Amino acid sequence: MASLEDIGVSAFINILSAFAFLLALLRIQPINDRVYFPKWYIKGVRSSPRHGRNLVAKFVNLDFRTYLTFLNWMPEALRKSEAELIDHAGLDSAVFLRIYLLGLKIFIPITILALLVLIPVNVSDGTLFFLRKELVVSDIDKLSISNVRPKSEKFWAHISMAYLFTLWICFMLYKEYDRVAFMRLHFLASQHRRVDQFTVVVRNVPRVSGHSISESVDQFFQTNHPDHYLSHQAVYNANKFARLVRQRERLQNWLDYNQLKFERHPDKRPTRKKGFLGLWGERVDAIESYKQSMKEHDRRMALEREKILKDPKLIMPVAFVSFNSRWAAAVCAQTEQSKNPTLWLTDWAPEPRDVYWQNLAIPFVSLSIRKFIMSTSVFALVFFYMIPIAFVQSLANLEGLERVAPWLRPVIEVNIIKSFLQGFLPGLALKIFLYILPSVLMLMSKIEGHISISSLERKAAAKYYYFMLVNVFLGSIVAGTAFEQLHSFLHQSPTQIPRTIGVSIPMKATFFITYIMVDGWAGIAVEILRLKPLVIYHLKNMFLVKTERDRDRAMNPGSVGLPETLPTLQLYFLLGIVYAVITPILLPFILVFFAFAYLVYRHQIINVYHQEYESAAAFWPHVHSRIIGSLLISHLLLLGLLSTKKAANSTPLLVILPILTLWFHKYCKSRFEPAFRKYPLEEAMAKDMMERASEPNLNLKAYLADAYLHPIFRSFEEVELVEVRVDKNQSHMSTPSMSEVSSPSPPHCVYHYDFES
Amino acid sequence: MASLEDIGVSAFINILSAFAFLLALLRIQPINDRVYFPKWYIKGVRSSPRHGRNLVAKFVNLDFRTYLTFLNWMPEALRKSEAELIDHAGLDSAVFLRIYLLGLKIFIPITILALLVLIPVNVSDGTLFFLRKELVVSDIDKLSISNVRPKSEKFWAHISMAYLFTLWICFMLYKEYDRVAFMRLHFLASQHRRVDQFTVVVRNVPRVSGHSISESVDQFFQTNHPDHYLSHQAVYNANKFARLVRQRERLQNWLDYNQLKFERHPDKRPTRKKGFLGLWGERVDAIESYKQSMKEHDRRMALEREKILKDPKLIMPVAFVSFNSRWAAAVCAQTEQSKNPTLWLTDWAPEPRDVYWQNLAIPFVSLSIRKFIMSTSVFALVFFYMIPIAFVQSLANLEGLERVAPWLRPVIEVNIIKSFLQGFLPGLALKIFLYILPSVLMLMSKIEGHISISSLERKAAAKYYYFMLVNVFLGSIVAGTAFEQLHSFLHQSPTQIPRTIGVSIPMKATFFITYIMVDGWAGIAVEILRLKPLVIYHLKNMFLVKTERDRDRAMNPGSVGLPETLPTLQLYFLLGIVYAVITPILLPFILVFFAFAYLVYRHQIINVYHQEYESAAAFWPHVHSRIIGSLLISHLLLLGLLSTKKAANSTPLLVILPILTLWFHKYCKSRFEPAFRKYPLEEAMAKDMMERASEPNLNLKAYLADAYLHPIFRSFEEVELVEVRVDKNQSHMSTPSMSEVSSPSPPHCVYHYDFES
Repeated sequence: MASLEDIGVSAFINILSAFAFLLALLRIQPINDRVYFPKWYIKGVRSSPRHGRNLVAKFVNLDFRTYLTFLNWMPEALRKSEAELIDHAGLDSAVFLRIYLLGLKIFIPITILALLVLIPVNVSDGTLFFLRKELVVSDIDKLSISNVRPKSEKFWAHISMAYLFTLWICFMLYKEYDRVAFMRLHFLASQHRRVDQFTVVVRNVPRVSGHSISESVDQFFQTNHPDHYLSHQAVYNANKFARLVRQRERLQNWLDYNQLKFERHPDKRPTRKKGFLGLWGERVDAIESYKQSMKEHDRRMALEREKILKDPKLIMPVAFVSFNSRWAAAVCAQTEQSKNPTLWLTDWAPEPRDVYWQNLAIPFVSLSIRKFIMSTSVFALVFFYMIPIAFVQSLANLEGLERVAPWLRPVIEVNIIKSFLQGFLPGLALKIFLYILPSVLMLMSKIEGHISISSLERKAAAKYYYFMLVNVFLGSIVAGTAFEQLHSFLHQSPTQIPRTIGVSIPMKATFFITYIMVDGWAGIAVEILRLKPLVIYHLKNMFLVKTERDRDRAMNPGSVGLPETLPTLQLYFLLGIVYAVITPILLPFILVFFAFAYLVYRHQIINVYHQEYESAAAFWPHVHSRIIGSLLISHLLLLGLLSTKKAANSTPLLVILPILTLWFHKYCKSRFEPAFRKYPLEEAMAKDMMERASEPNLNLKAYLADAYLHPIFRSFEEVELVEVRVDKNQSHMSTPSMSEVSSPSPPHCVYHYDFES
Repeated sequence: MASLEDIGVSAFINILSAFAFLLALLRIQPINDRVYFPKWYIKGVRSSPRHGRNLVAKFVNLDFRTYLTFLNWMPEALRKSEAELIDHAGLDSAVFLRIYLLGLKIFIPITILALLVLIPVNVSDGTLFFLRKELVVSDIDKLSISNVRPKSEKFWAHISMAYLFTLWICFMLYKEYDRVAFMRLHFLASQHRRVDQFTVVVRNVPRVSGHSISESVDQFFQTNHPDHYLSHQAVYNANKFARLVRQRERLQNWLDYNQLKFERHPDKRPTRKKGFLGLWGERVDAIESYKQSMKEHDRRMALEREKILKDPKLIMPVAFVSFNSRWAAAVCAQTEQSKNPTLWLTDWAPEPRDVYWQNLAIPFVSLSIRKFIMSTSVFALVFFYMIPIAFVQSLANLEGLERVAPWLRPVIEVNIIKSFLQGFLPGLALKIFLYILPSVLMLMSKIEGHISISSLERKAAAKYYYFMLVNVFLGSIVAGTAFEQLHSFLHQSPTQIPRTIGVSIPMKATFFITYIMVDGWAGIAVEILRLKPLVIYHLKNMFLVKTERDRDRAMNPGSVGLPETLPTLQLYFLLGIVYAVITPILLPFILVFFAFAYLVYRHQIINVYHQEYESAAAFWPHVHSRIIGSLLISHLLLLGLLSTKKAANSTPLLVILPILTLWFHKYCKSRFEPAFRKYPLEEAMAKDMMERASEPNLNLKAYLADAYLHPIFRSFEEVELVEVRVDKNQSHMSTPSMSEVSSPSPPHCVYHYDFES
């Protein structure tokens, strides 16, 4: 492992050039246009590129000049200003990009300083040459803090750098938090009228005998907010109806398909078989038959709809309550309503696209039990997930396979296949696990009972981060599984733990450099290439797509996968901050990652992803506190490392650092977090006044009337279908498909696809 | 230490009978009436008992029948119903008594069950007879869990009891929290109109150039609460004025005294000397001279008052903002006002008597720095307080004394004095420290910047509890100072700590039984006897009291000393819960303490203490969470103890227990705590409506006009003096005097006295 650097760099160059080549080949083909620029199709700016060219040019780009300018997207991605970006893709996306920029802002000065100051200090001491001749010492170790001899005065350089870096990071974090909070408030203030500004979600409406939920809500708010209450929207348990809507949509699709077919070949009227899956049975006219089925279906839906609206049991104890001003909504969302704090729980309504309807009816007691169970499960998942996997692995060997499926024996016994299976089978369970992990975490968050998709994604991201922190970061540094670590930590003294980890930190630098290249750089390359969506789009296009609507859905790229991208991103912050003082040579690799990723994601957000809801950067407090957490971990590990280096007099200095950091965190929390949790009355009042001045005759009641109707109840026109699609996308976000799972690290980028067909 | 029980019980009987005797002698003497029944004097129900009797009967009770019925107060104390008690002494006092009742409710069934089940189980095993013959084993140890042999199946009895006890305690806690929350809301609802219901305190009002603070406040609230804003009251920096007021009051007092003197002896006009302290200088007519001084003083005060009201620098960026309804005040208190979350911070206004004026002007940044510094100081105080004391102790010996004060040598060399000093000096520093500790903790809380006296007292109580937990509970169990413990804990594995402590727990049972008797029982006896207030009252009466007003002040017993009583009380809960499973024989002693203390405090609250403010049981969440904390500690220690007993299969069962307890705590917190932090709108609206119906023509603005004027600005009549007194009592609460400090445990009861003379 002498020159892992060289290996890494050359590997990177190879990977990158291969990707660039593929990119050039794939990106500029018209046939792939919908995969690489779906956002423009969704926005309606671009239509099919295949019209008006010759047959070949429809599928293959024949303009050879473009092959040479295939990297044009890079400057183009940078050209949009931030304001344009917010306008184009929403604040969530713009602030998401700022995280990468923050990475650059933090790490560029730190890298320069660390390379200029710490590397000469580390190299000059050179203990590793003398003391550890017998050990294999990589070049990287010579540049790290391991090279400084124990009790050396030079550790003062490292300690002062730790202080400097912490100060700089805190300063940048403060500035960024300030900026993002301002952007959020500005965004909320400058937005046009939105239904969620006037609406509050009320949970745990008590059931009073003799009164319907609607009557209770009306009465309660007319009493307690007499000057401001406008109307409310009941929430229905419409799971059955949603199923019917899905079925009807499928029928509609088949009808469209057959009508299209008939239009193209007016001579041949399409037919279908009436039996199971259209495989057998009486052959009938397809268009007529589907029209018939749809009529029948509409009748059943009308009945079901009637039933839902009438049956009081299907009305959930939840309501969306609307007020006649933003001020009143802000007041209601932030105050305690009832004497019994478990009833009439009010909170901001998420915007209608962001509502996770299924969780609206969970009662309070159940909610706290669910949270309790889920937090213990996450703990178990993080620390003990290896146990069932190891068990499955012990079963999944060739003997087991032969015993279960004896008829496979002749195939298995072929040598090539045998060796392939022997290498593949044991890791299979782990790979499957890592593949489904984000879905499992999302499912857990759903069970916890959050009512908006944005908060579900944030919670899933948090869980994923803990998993990566323990299993990727700690797991790579300390040998053994997370369970073994937990066991050994419990039986060590608290002061021993940072030592144990601290000592192994510098040795793992080469591993993490490789990790950054393999997972980070390559992950970004995979992101820009969109290989998996490309394949899936073409497969769908070939086999499943029947109508334009199907194609649109196959093309839909979904949101940036925050639940997976945020945690990986935060992991890189952690690596950079921890190694900044210990092995500064790792920093340039982090820098390249942030720069490259910034470019790529900027491009992807402009051209590919289509944010499905807008949370106005509600995830920022999490990003902030995770970076603070990384700082604390780095302080602790440095403390442990230096205590093994017998630089004991540094301990008090290093103990102060995390305390100051914690205090900074508390200060930031009280200074900025309210902007992300509450809506200040000053703001609400100003916007109300402005609107009253500009539109004195606004009929708010009509505007808000159906805003929070369960999306499936919309009239069955185009509007309704779009709405239904949104709803369905939401409910399928729980099982995002993933590409390129490279164990042990979960994938860097995830593409959302809607497999609904 | 074979029969420590017998010793303890006989000691208790002796102490008790002595106290009873003294009680009989002291309590029923008319001369002491103001010490034992001051509340009735404050309420104006009782006037001086000395009128209309013969000279001796004025001072000594000659009705010998009453000497035999001296315990009559006990049934009398129980006669009042809870509603009457709330009416008589406020909700704070009534709920304070409920803590003792809760102790009885929790521990009576536990004691019965533990004595019936666990003691037979423990005794029957009898390992201690065989295995540890060489050790001194007390009778108490034979009754404890130490007596059960390792790996015994009998531990199941203890584990199931631990479950049962935890369930019972949680059940009682839940019921009690429910009840107290209900009482609080009912109390708030049934109260008559109070200014704090309409008022919100606003901190960090931004200074805008060209606008005064008052103008800013007016403008901001007229904009953002246009329909509800009524008026506001600026807060002035009136420290200098307060000093003048105090001086004037002293002059007034002298004037009253001289006039009284002149009335009694009209023949002799009182004179005074004009010089320093009236010791020398020209002799002048006292009444004239004081009248002159007061006139001069009034002029200076008027000037100063003018200056305060005019100088914008003396107006603090704080205001009490009043609204035209409770609803609007509740809304403003609970919502975020400004875009900048550090400006316009709103919170409920404490009632005027409860405001701690000095802290109103602390800016936000300073506040978070203060909190940070104070929390580290409390940590240092709890763990390192022995270091300076040991240092002082090393200095405070006879040689040191002789070196500093050589002229004392002849006195010191006398044998009796020498031996007394040798025994007394080393402990002196510790005793002084423990004596001033509550004041120090109160001062720390004040520096933290809380703006109401009730919250200051709660914070001081919390600090005191941590101090006692570490230094009394842990300090008695584990040998060595807290600092040594901290050191050893840091170098042990986390699983080792509960073992280390758990093993020593049963051995310390006898110590804690003695502690309960010496500190608990005797403390309660001291409380009922009020020896120290008795002495101080008579001393003051003899030397300082000049007028009726002075006598009233000397008599004023103040509030129940919550900052000291609550922590000690919680310590007894901790002892009872920890030992319930381990050494159940300790429980009856706890029970006696709770029963005795309940009686005594009921009597004291009815007859002695005079609550100075009403926080409507705001301290209950703290009581609840400390008892939960005790449960968790008991689980941890039982776990540690059983793991040394090799009952390893019990570990999973015992790990579940604290997790369930924690979950219960979280549930209770979300279920009940909002009732203590927020004022529900439903409640506010109902009260508003009722008032509007009954008093449609109420002039709220006039009612609220001067409610939150700094008390010293009131007109200089009787009203003003009462107000000023309240204010001064508040500012002197920081240095409550303490009696009977018995190291190492701080005293159980504390009497507040106003030494202002």
